Amino acid sequence: MSANTSAYTALERRYARMSHVAGARGMLSWDHQTMMPVGGADARAEQMATLGVIEHELATDPALPDLFAAAEQEPLDDWQRANLREMRRRWRHATALDADLVERVSRAASAGDLAWRAARPANDFAGFAPALRAVLAVVREVAARKTEALGLAPYDALLDEYEPGFGAAEVDVLFADLERFLPDFLGRALERQRARPAPERPGGPFPVERQRALGVRLMEAVGFDFHHGRLDVSLHPFCGGTPDDVRITTRYDESDFTSALMGVLHETGHAMYERGLPAAWRHQPVGEARSTGMHESQSLLIEMQACRGREFLGFAAPIMRQAFDGDGPAWHPDNLYRLYTRVEPDFIRVDADEVTYPAHVILRYRLERAMIAGDLAVDDLPGAWNDGMKRLLGIVPPTDTLGCLQDIHWADGAFGYFPTYTLGAMAAAQLFAAARRAEPGIPAALEHGDFTPLMAWLRAHVHGQGSLLGAPELMTRATGQPLGVAAFEAHLEARYLS
Amino acid sequence: MSANTSAYTALERRYARMSHVAGARGMLSWDHQTMMPVGGADARAEQMATLGVIEHELATDPALPDLFAAAEQEPLDDWQRANLREMRRRWRHATALDADLVERVSRAASAGDLAWRAARPANDFAGFAPALRAVLAVVREVAARKTEALGLAPYDALLDEYEPGFGAAEVDVLFADLERFLPDFLGRALERQRARPAPERPGGPFPVERQRALGVRLMEAVGFDFHHGRLDVSLHPFCGGTPDDVRITTRYDESDFTSALMGVLHETGHAMYERGLPAAWRHQPVGEARSTGMHESQSLLIEMQACRGREFLGFAAPIMRQAFDGDGPAWHPDNLYRLYTRVEPDFIRVDADEVTYPAHVILRYRLERAMIAGDLAVDDLPGAWNDGMKRLLGIVPPTDTLGCLQDIHWADGAFGYFPTYTLGAMAAAQLFAAARRAEPGIPAALEHGDFTPLMAWLRAHVHGQGSLLGAPELMTRATGQPLGVAAFEAHLEARYLS
Repeated sequence: MSANTSAYTALERRYARMSHVAGARGMLSWDHQTMMPVGGADARAEQMATLGVIEHELATDPALPDLFAAAEQEPLDDWQRANLREMRRRWRHATALDADLVERVSRAASAGDLAWRAARPANDFAGFAPALRAVLAVVREVAARKTEALGLAPYDALLDEYEPGFGAAEVDVLFADLERFLPDFLGRALERQRARPAPERPGGPFPVERQRALGVRLMEAVGFDFHHGRLDVSLHPFCGGTPDDVRITTRYDESDFTSALMGVLHETGHAMYERGLPAAWRHQPVGEARSTGMHESQSLLIEMQACRGREFLGFAAPIMRQAFDGDGPAWHPDNLYRLYTRVEPDFIRVDADEVTYPAHVILRYRLERAMIAGDLAVDDLPGAWNDGMKRLLGIVPPTDTLGCLQDIHWADGAFGYFPTYTLGAMAAAQLFAAARRAEPGIPAALEHGDFTPLMAWLRAHVHGQGSLLGAPELMTRATGQPLGVAAFEAHLEARYLS
Repeated sequence: MSANTSAYTALERRYARMSHVAGARGMLSWDHQTMMPVGGADARAEQMATLGVIEHELATDPALPDLFAAAEQEPLDDWQRANLREMRRRWRHATALDADLVERVSRAASAGDLAWRAARPANDFAGFAPALRAVLAVVREVAARKTEALGLAPYDALLDEYEPGFGAAEVDVLFADLERFLPDFLGRALERQRARPAPERPGGPFPVERQRALGVRLMEAVGFDFHHGRLDVSLHPFCGGTPDDVRITTRYDESDFTSALMGVLHETGHAMYERGLPAAWRHQPVGEARSTGMHESQSLLIEMQACRGREFLGFAAPIMRQAFDGDGPAWHPDNLYRLYTRVEPDFIRVDADEVTYPAHVILRYRLERAMIAGDLAVDDLPGAWNDGMKRLLGIVPPTDTLGCLQDIHWADGAFGYFPTYTLGAMAAAQLFAAARRAEPGIPAALEHGDFTPLMAWLRAHVHGQGSLLGAPELMTRATGQPLGVAAFEAHLEARYLS
């Protein structure tokens, strides 16, 4: 860095401080979900809220705009300039809302969360509706404020927090492409699946300790470094911690190891992204992961593209068998492959296979856009949900518990998040295809459980790029073309129709 | 609280915030010592340093003195007034040192710590001396600054951070009393011990999982609430976390369960104090534990007074035996009692029994006072150490590793800490005696592993008092007399000569 970049250097110090506070808060959150005794909840909530307020104070410090302006005049290299751009982006988001609105959002989301936890098991949409209406009202206020601050349309302003560089216009085009492709493809995939023998489930029980050891074995194959991370148990699996101390979690079911194992590999994909972020830019905005969708692309690349593929399962099947002293045809790689690529339209998004998953996302995207636009009232949500399910997957949930009450996102105020799942799936396919074109040895390496060539390509083209580029440009540079549906569709056709 | 105490209320909010940041930092420290993969150390150090700086900024906010002054004029009850007194005390300590000195202390202590870790195993005092000289120099500067800020003599100003209310004058009197008593007593105790059969060590191995289960069983007997705490493993056992989420640790040796088990009960004593602090004053200075010595009194009361006593061991011996499917005379309560009350002059403080422990502390106290006063040069420390060991315990360590290099405290800059161990031992004996006078059923209850009457008394007279009173007044109110040596000596005589 040049010696005379004093305003810029001051900014780096400030953002490093924010990063350390955020890192501390992340660890408290990990502990909350993995280690904390129940009686610690209140004190923990206060600790986390206090760190959140401190972070917000640092992020909205009135001294920042002058430092931004002064830094603009200083000689900066590309990374520094991108860092400054990301700082400004954070500043705009952080200052778009005044303290009163931030607090009202937080309160509405807490009440929404609570109401959702009661309403979902009780199939009580009417009981949930008032809380959701309140959440929607404050989120629409947020969208209005961010519209002014960011110069984006209301829904785009919400999406921008998760997926900067993409707006509804781009998502609409991509999702419309997919919607044209999927219904017909699903029919053909199901037809083909029916023509083959149904996969057999390996017989359990599968003791937790053995499941854990198997997970660790395959995490290490992917490249997870246990000197810089851990695997633990939580109710909802996640990837937390910091790039030098990545904490992933899973949840075990002793009657079925297959789901937790793929969950571990999914979180390992997230972890590899964090761990591969540019070390020279640790604790700076430009050194962080690009976006929610890009993060999901890395977990799905490892889970869906690599680990559910024939090559890797050929390597992993005997390891799985040995892990549980298994025996018989259920442990054959072909059977495990059919099990891990089973397609089945169902009501629940989180259990969905990769063919039907986009339908779940497209439905939610359309509904949340309409709610933000004021075109769909909360009371009309269950009907609109069921109509959409019918149209997209040909099934209608018998209850709201299996329908519009299944996800926590809206109750928590997370509007604009859903599209990132499918943007991530499309990016995963496109990146994996580009990696194989550049490194034709990748599939053969995966047959031996060797992720080195794949990971080297991802490090160079995705992980090590941090937030240097916007996600659209990152995709174009890494794959030779803008993010599109072609690679995802080609992947599905190759896997499910060939 | 009265409605018009606005300055006071503002202070409570500020100190609650500091408490939440400190609580967060405590959790990060716990994780560092129990869970963190080695590669997370650098990022963790930055997170903890950042929270430390934020805490220091909050604690030295220039707005505080005006708020203190305004709050003094407001109608406050006794607890509020004590809270204000504790706030002022913290302010005086926090502002006594400027940022430059704080940083120099921190750097000298880091270098001292590093040099000590190399010098101790190598028996290289000459290699350690320069680092210790540097630490001593900055600590003497600290003492000088705190002398001005607190109006205390230099050593007293250091001691005040750990043990407010006690100065060298008081410690001198107490330790002189002990020094008159101990050498002769030790001789008599050893003579009596020689007249009895030597205790037999139960044969192992003792698997970690069983040791852990036994520890949990006895922690629950003492009253530890696992809804508000955990037991984990760390290299150096400690009690961390917060009152509503107390995290204690131990270290297991599969060839000997007795040491880890008593260690667990010791930390449980610390944990019960934290857990019993006044809930209405959570996150306020007045709601915190009174002092380092009072904290040690609670761990030693549980470990030394209660759990190494005949009554409790009568209850615990069969549980220990069952825990390991043990058999034979080694598991007899009388044998375990003799094992757990074995006296043996030795070089290492942390392994010392309760009879010889004070000699180790008195030695260190005299030496550190002389170093702070400028009467003892670092180069003369090994000789002075060995002279003191000869005089106090009649043994001379063959190496500095077993002598003046054994403890980390001075290397870390902790001068004024050592006396609190023995002040705690004396307070433990005096409090336990007072509790038994007030509740004569305590010994009989301990015979059944029932800590309820003991704990109820401690809650009322110690734990629930937080920092309402100074430690001297707390002791006088709880036991009817000032802290003295009589109860400690009576305890030793009853246990080792009867």
